[in-house]
Amino acid sequence: MQLSDKIKHTIRDVHDYPKPGIIFKDITPVLSDPVLMHEIAGQLKQDFQGQKLDAIAAVEARGFIFGSILAHELGCRFIPIRKAGKLPYKVRRKEYDLEYGTACIEVHEDAIQSGWRVLVQDDLLATGGTAGAAAALIESFGATVAGFSFIINLSFLPGYSLLKERFGVDPHFLTEY
Amino acid sequence: MQLSDKIKHTIRDVHDYPKPGIIFKDITPVLSDPVLMHEIAGQLKQDFQGQKLDAIAAVEARGFIFGSILAHELGCRFIPIRKAGKLPYKVRRKEYDLEYGTACIEVHEDAIQSGWRVLVQDDLLATGGTAGAAAALIESFGATVAGFSFIINLSFLPGYSLLKERFGVDPHFLTEY
Repeated sequence: MQLSDKIKHTIRDVHDYPKPGIIFKDITPVLSDPVLMHEIAGQLKQDFQGQKLDAIAAVEARGFIFGSILAHELGCRFIPIRKAGKLPYKVRRKEYDLEYGTACIEVHEDAIQSGWRVLVQDDLLATGGTAGAAAALIESFGATVAGFSFIINLSFLPGYSLLKERFGVDPHFLTEY
Repeated sequence: MQLSDKIKHTIRDVHDYPKPGIIFKDITPVLSDPVLMHEIAGQLKQDFQGQKLDAIAAVEARGFIFGSILAHELGCRFIPIRKAGKLPYKVRRKEYDLEYGTACIEVHEDAIQSGWRVLVQDDLLATGGTAGAAAALIESFGATVAGFSFIINLSFLPGYSLLKERFGVDPHFLTEY
């Protein structure tokens, strides 16, 4: 079986979460399958090891899981991007729109340097709001968004096109719906 | 330099966070040092690979970083334990006391099986409240808390004694203050 199908086969659909009508893609069964996780990490390493990345950035909390493993595998810095108020040192912040209202993410002021090539890692690409905000934050330091890496792409939502158009890179994913 | 000293040398003290009088141990400079992260992962792997662990459990968000790397290195399942309302499927929950008020953590109802040996991984041991709640949750499934692993132990706080007394294991740490 292809890796894409193995991931789909393992993900659990949770109906009506976080609200009625939504089918949530639950990745916790993937995290509970060390053989599959090993294959995912190996594939990501293979796909990104030639790209001269300086750092992997990830937004809490699920992004930390795959982001830290990939940073470890590639020998890159890991940059945690967090919800407002969670980082202890001086921060740079980015507000972004949600369906209703706004959200805010922050990164440490000294976490990224001008000229770095930074990959944004998260588990799932939907509207692209959070990943796009993380990428805008990275660009504000004079660094380059080298790419986006997701486990899952929801192709019926506009995230893929939005990120590609705004940042000029094709988001990478391992499986899609 | 010993690993313990390298970690101390890299951690940043942030004064008066999250409130006046507290010196917060900021591990983000450690995450930005791939050579040190490689050494930390190697040491943890060496320390735990003989212990026949079935899973590594970690509480969001910083715990996810070291927990997922260790699970990956050991070829174990990774079990995310989250703040209330964040996990999509049926959950089992544990409330615990904070200095003021209470907090609540949750794990998926099918994440842990009776008889498993589970290690709790987090970045820092202070009062032991969160790690102890995670361990109690693990025991509620009929699983064994095989141990606790932290990067930092704050030895002037009671967490170490509390976990040792309650769960009968010596918490493991890489450096202490």
